[in-house]
Amino acid sequence: MNYTEMSQSAMEMMLADLRESYDTYVSMNLKLDMSRGKPGEDQLALSNDMLTILCEDDFTSPGGIDCRNYGGLEGIPEMKALFADILDISPEEVIVGGNSSLAMMFDNVAVNMTHGVRDGEPWLTQGKVKFLCPSPGYDRHFTICEYFHIHMIPVPMTPTGPDMDIVENLLASDPMIKGMWCVPVFSNPEGIVYSDETVRRLAALKPAAEDFRLYWDNAYCIHHFNGRQPVVPNILRECEKAGNPHMPLIFASFSKVSLAGAGVAAMAGSLSNCEYIRQRFFVQTIGPDKLSQLRHVRFFKNYEGVMKHMGKMAEILRPKFATVLDKLADELEGLGIAEWNKPEGGYFISFNILDGCAKRTVALCKEAGVVMTGAGATYPYGKDPRDRNIRIAPTYPSVSELQKAMEVFCLAVKIAALEKLMEA
Amino acid sequence: MNYTEMSQSAMEMMLADLRESYDTYVSMNLKLDMSRGKPGEDQLALSNDMLTILCEDDFTSPGGIDCRNYGGLEGIPEMKALFADILDISPEEVIVGGNSSLAMMFDNVAVNMTHGVRDGEPWLTQGKVKFLCPSPGYDRHFTICEYFHIHMIPVPMTPTGPDMDIVENLLASDPMIKGMWCVPVFSNPEGIVYSDETVRRLAALKPAAEDFRLYWDNAYCIHHFNGRQPVVPNILRECEKAGNPHMPLIFASFSKVSLAGAGVAAMAGSLSNCEYIRQRFFVQTIGPDKLSQLRHVRFFKNYEGVMKHMGKMAEILRPKFATVLDKLADELEGLGIAEWNKPEGGYFISFNILDGCAKRTVALCKEAGVVMTGAGATYPYGKDPRDRNIRIAPTYPSVSELQKAMEVFCLAVKIAALEKLMEA
Repeated sequence: MNYTEMSQSAMEMMLADLRESYDTYVSMNLKLDMSRGKPGEDQLALSNDMLTILCEDDFTSPGGIDCRNYGGLEGIPEMKALFADILDISPEEVIVGGNSSLAMMFDNVAVNMTHGVRDGEPWLTQGKVKFLCPSPGYDRHFTICEYFHIHMIPVPMTPTGPDMDIVENLLASDPMIKGMWCVPVFSNPEGIVYSDETVRRLAALKPAAEDFRLYWDNAYCIHHFNGRQPVVPNILRECEKAGNPHMPLIFASFSKVSLAGAGVAAMAGSLSNCEYIRQRFFVQTIGPDKLSQLRHVRFFKNYEGVMKHMGKMAEILRPKFATVLDKLADELEGLGIAEWNKPEGGYFISFNILDGCAKRTVALCKEAGVVMTGAGATYPYGKDPRDRNIRIAPTYPSVSELQKAMEVFCLAVKIAALEKLMEA
Repeated sequence: MNYTEMSQSAMEMMLADLRESYDTYVSMNLKLDMSRGKPGEDQLALSNDMLTILCEDDFTSPGGIDCRNYGGLEGIPEMKALFADILDISPEEVIVGGNSSLAMMFDNVAVNMTHGVRDGEPWLTQGKVKFLCPSPGYDRHFTICEYFHIHMIPVPMTPTGPDMDIVENLLASDPMIKGMWCVPVFSNPEGIVYSDETVRRLAALKPAAEDFRLYWDNAYCIHHFNGRQPVVPNILRECEKAGNPHMPLIFASFSKVSLAGAGVAAMAGSLSNCEYIRQRFFVQTIGPDKLSQLRHVRFFKNYEGVMKHMGKMAEILRPKFATVLDKLADELEGLGIAEWNKPEGGYFISFNILDGCAKRTVALCKEAGVVMTGAGATYPYGKDPRDRNIRIAPTYPSVSELQKAMEVFCLAVKIAALEKLMEA
């Protein structure tokens, strides 16, 4: 039954019923968390052998580097090679960092703000810096912008990626737009894979700012759990072809491959961009933890090893996503109050309720002990203009916890929607 | 025989003899490195058990944190407690970071440049930022300043620390002096321990800049190898007493305790300063590698465990420093051409030759296959005004390598000094 076609009195009766069920859940004192894209224990357990893969007299990289000591500012060659294979580029185009690709993104924004892109003026002395932010998007990208007082311009997402007409128009005319966040594969939160055309149009952008940079956060480049791993055109090669060799800054990480807090991150880009970051690294740090890199190299061995591992990961994630999607279909399909995507990879399900109902839904969930990502978090400044988007993160809870959490969630959605419809 | 009292012809004969010996070394194609404060393999081996201290089902901190996953932005409580014991402060005053204290110092300078100290104006919008740089000092401190275009003002070192009359005068009058680098215990490179009076005068500074910060790099706080560990007054408590609670930013690290590239670093300071950095961490990173912290906590157990370990470290370092100091005494004492310190801890020996001879000495060493730290590196901008200071780093080579390297070094010193004296 479509809620939007119900009479006021039918809605009243329905709401009373739903509230009764909801109160039962409230009294259960649940404590469930679907707020962050955090791997579950079962996913982490796949990499437990990494903890014992080195031994007392085994700390030397295949190429002969003592991984215990100082040195090796941009990672051991074997780790660079592994990232190069994953990203389909050459090892010279990779700089391996510490355990956080977020930190590498932050750093790249920071250096461009204070020192400019290589051979450029510092962004912050040029005026009010702006970034294009495809939305809904990843809240941590937006937080970096906020931290540096970068003005964020939301760009709508389409099923093939950011709306490229809007992107091209904005970039062509405003030289203060210095950056754009992209999650090209299984975008956060919608799980959208950029189409070939989108990638090529991005590569061929003609930004008014010569020092514009495309922040290409390939966080989920090998993170499919259904069907085949999608392949998007190689952004570095496409940008070269289009005459924009230094435009893309690519980021990737093992956080959602091996161990979330003890993975290895990398950035990639033109040789000139790599050299620029290498110079900063020299000033900034003694270098990344090479023992962690050696553990990764030994454990995964090569690209095939990584992909085999991700196959096991998919087996764990598939039932979790299916639990959420089945519940949404069972409870909400046909009610006319919500839409959601059905991703084949990544970490999230993006859920849109009737306008003006997201905050209320999340609050109802919280009251019943189910923590969701804050409504609005997927938009710049935490402000969803339509207050409708909720990010569901199914990875951390167990399947049975997910079932319970989704029951609460679907109840909250129905209640919030009915309240809204009855107002109208 | 004092070189400075020799006749020209005696010097000529002496120089010819020395050159002959030197040429013999050149023909040996040596490859010895005394350039960096890098631990030797024997030092690293003391911590090899850390590589196997965790096992497949052992990844939970004593307090119950799964160290594999995300979370714990400022370190696991047990690691904070360990740093707190080492620095004699409370765990709330500690933020544990990644593997590099240099990175934490860089970050603190960076945040103050772009965002100011907490509740302050950004340094970089106030004008030309300046730092006081006790010299000779640590080249990496100076490099951070250069990177951010911070003007460095050298301050002479005395046997009790930086010349405090000069420091007090400069700071009282110039509000653009925003920072000062200090290595209070076994300073790099001179191995000087700040006197109680120096520490108290530093704590009681009345800087013209309200947003002045004391960068207290306590890199060698437990790194004595002769006699007793010196205790300097607690800078955090002294600054509180003097009404400057937010002035000191304290840094420490396990890089020269456990594994150089895979240690754990921390910063410490007032609760307000910690909160300020915590806010940045939230934007900047997913958090430090907690498995590395767990390895440290398990391996060292507590403060006593750390100190016992440092006792073993001292056994390794003592003969290395003795080799260098004995050689210097045997070869150069009484010649009137050089002076050097005799440190009881830290990582370096600071060597002063006749003015104008340091570059030549290092070049002669290099030609004979012995790499020293570049002459001038211990001064801001790499410019030693008297071209006399050379930093000797005895930790990495073996004792037999050190003996050979020091033979070359002493020959180079004599040749460079004679060349200079003969010019005069």
